[in-house]
Amino acid sequence: MDEPKSAHNETARIEAFSDGVFAIAITLLILEIKVPPQTGHDVLRPALLDLWPSYLAFVSSFMTIGVMWLNHHRLFTLINKKDDGLIAFNLLLLLGITWLPFPTALLAEHLRSTHVDQQTAAVVYASSFFALAIVFNVMWRYAIRMRLVEDDLHVGAITKQYRLGPIMYGLLVAVAFFGAKWCLGLSILYALYFALPPSLWRKAQGL
Amino acid sequence: MDEPKSAHNETARIEAFSDGVFAIAITLLILEIKVPPQTGHDVLRPALLDLWPSYLAFVSSFMTIGVMWLNHHRLFTLINKKDDGLIAFNLLLLLGITWLPFPTALLAEHLRSTHVDQQTAAVVYASSFFALAIVFNVMWRYAIRMRLVEDDLHVGAITKQYRLGPIMYGLLVAVAFFGAKWCLGLSILYALYFALPPSLWRKAQGL
Amino acid sequence: MDEPKSAHNETARIEAFSDGVFAIAITLLILEIKVPPQTGHDVLRPALLDLWPSYLAFVSSFMTIGVMWLNHHRLFTLINKKDDGLIAFNLLLLLGITWLPFPTALLAEHLRSTHVDQQTAAVVYASSFFALAIVFNVMWRYAIRMRLVEDDLHVGAITKQYRLGPIMYGLLVAVAFFGAKWCLGLSILYALYFALPPSLWRKAQGL
Amino acid sequence: MDEPKSAHNETARIEAFSDGVFAIAITLLILEIKVPPQTGHDVLRPALLDLWPSYLAFVSSFMTIGVMWLNHHRLFTLINKKDDGLIAFNLLLLLGITWLPFPTALLAEHLRSTHVDQQTAAVVYASSFFALAIVFNVMWRYAIRMRLVEDDLHVGAITKQYRLGPIMYGLLVAVAFFGAKWCLGLSILYALYFALPPSLWRKAQGL
Repeated sequence: MDEPKSAHNETARIEAFSDGVFAIAITLLILEIKVPPQTGHDVLRPALLDLWPSYLAFVSSFMTIGVMWLNHHRLFTLINKKDDGLIAFNLLLLLGITWLPFPTALLAEHLRSTHVDQQTAAVVYASSFFALAIVFNVMWRYAIRMRLVEDDLHVGAITKQYRLGPIMYGLLVAVAFFGAKWCLGLSILYALYFALPPSLWRKAQGL
Repeated sequence: MDEPKSAHNETARIEAFSDGVFAIAITLLILEIKVPPQTGHDVLRPALLDLWPSYLAFVSSFMTIGVMWLNHHRLFTLINKKDDGLIAFNLLLLLGITWLPFPTALLAEHLRSTHVDQQTAAVVYASSFFALAIVFNVMWRYAIRMRLVEDDLHVGAITKQYRLGPIMYGLLVAVAFFGAKWCLGLSILYALYFALPPSLWRKAQGL
Repeated sequence: MDEPKSAHNETARIEAFSDGVFAIAITLLILEIKVPPQTGHDVLRPALLDLWPSYLAFVSSFMTIGVMWLNHHRLFTLINKKDDGLIAFNLLLLLGITWLPFPTALLAEHLRSTHVDQQTAAVVYASSFFALAIVFNVMWRYAIRMRLVEDDLHVGAITKQYRLGPIMYGLLVAVAFFGAKWCLGLSILYALYFALPPSLWRKAQGL
Repeated sequence: MDEPKSAHNETARIEAFSDGVFAIAITLLILEIKVPPQTGHDVLRPALLDLWPSYLAFVSSFMTIGVMWLNHHRLFTLINKKDDGLIAFNLLLLLGITWLPFPTALLAEHLRSTHVDQQTAAVVYASSFFALAIVFNVMWRYAIRMRLVEDDLHVGAITKQYRLGPIMYGLLVAVAFFGAKWCLGLSILYALYFALPPSLWRKAQGL
């Protein structure tokens, strides 16, 4: 009788904990950008401009984590029951999220390395997002199969939209072999794409 | 029927996530102040005094982020609906907030650099706040235009007060060209001004 | 009359604060993995592979903190009153949680040190978990003795399950003397064991 | 009519934001303890033992921040209205809390410096707590004077108990002149004293 409420509270704490991890991971990204030291010469301006890979990697990862937070948020609006499997998948997802500051700093550091090192850094970066896209899908399908999701018109639309994620980030891994800059540019485009269209897509449905 | 409640929950999670980001960004500022190492000579006192630019930059950014949190908080007391545009603007705002530890450390490091490097650091610092003031305004106007804001006497007053922000921080950018110390001093004055007057302004309205 | 509600709120804030500490400690783990610097030679791939101790230590500690968060969460679902003793035990527990990034980095750094240094690092690592398992037990028994726990079928099962913790992590300390790799491997097995079985165990009880 | 609820929500968000800042500041303390590097010789054990000032400073600051969180928490259980003054005092308090990782690292680094440098570090450490004790008092008195506090038997007791804080931490500043170790030892005693007695004190009142 009071199980639904209890279950709801449970989901609430999972969401709160997840929100905390997302918020911290997204804020830690800035720590990877190091301030150019004082030198006594007028070299700060070029030194700051020289940090552009760090800025781009920061923005790309910020936006991607932000979009993932939105998706996580949207899923848990529909998920209203939990089981241990869901909790385990969610922890796996958070493991991926806390991992992201590392490949972000890696890509920024090696965006102008040798071609081989660029490849390495970019493949690690793209693969991290690819793995997260897969975990998102698996968790969502698990929640549906286990009937943890409430009946809702959006469920089918989300499932369809999510199928895209692994394909797009699989492509990002492939692009990573051509160079770190292509990979970074494409990942920013992806984040923009994911950040913007739900608006249009929802308006089309009159929500 | 249950959409209002759902919409309210949605805003609640945006606020919680934003609060997390604000709280982390404001706390990370301290990591930029490095402890003077042990030397075996009695040099700690001058070494600590020598860190005054770091202390001032810490206080200035802390207060400014604190005031921005207050403003964010006040806005979302009035905003009671959300759409994807609001979420996107809010993410942009949080991007700016997480960015702030970097210009803070930059200004502290270069407060006593050459005049040109001081300018550079101060312009980056002031521009970051300037950009945030603009995002705040754009988000607020967007929320009003999209009717996400409840009818309230304060709406007009806030709109009027907010118009000041970009002008004041635009002035801060201009002052930054004269030297980093002027810029830092003025930004502390601004934070004090923004931290204090709402009190008087509200008392005058009997709230 | 309104004490129960007030007491509940009290527990809610303890949980929220604890969630924050867990979320931050789990996310800070990544800061201990340092990005290999740019060198101009194609050395990033081996350099990244060479970091495997850091990855394993990261995963092991992430999973262990994650499992501890789950346990904390489960306990406070059943604990519905608080007293100063509970608060003090909880602070002690959080002290242990915030400590964990240090032994994690220590084990990663010394996984390939001399045998003696491996022992040292592994014993510190295992002892940290051992101490936390003991604090968990003491807190839980205290809550039961003080009648802070609601009547529930799970209480006995949890008490039984918790008795295992100190024994298992005591064994981990013993294994640590044989080398850091054994210790790390076993601690990952433990985290997997603790992350998975509640699911089976609960299903068996039809919950 | 709906002002009380709105006011309550307002306090709730202040508490949530403050909890976040407390949780982050308390967790960042561990970042100041640096892992001894791999050397190829059996030197880890003495190197770890040699870090004892860092451990003690970590424990002392953790406990003090923990106790301050408890006090903050207890105050806001009684404070049920807010005004801009309260918000400003609370920000000032949080400024002090986020500052604490710096004096903590400072004291740890200089616990074995020359006597003069020990003094300097210890005075900075003790003064930080002293200032926080004063801000706590001023905020509490402000809240009472502004009638933001509900009628409660505890109000008088808290006021009496709080008067002790500045006196005790003023004494800590004096002790700091005799050496950093005395200061650290006394501050641990203080934290223990503050962490434990409320239990006895409350039991005596039958709460």
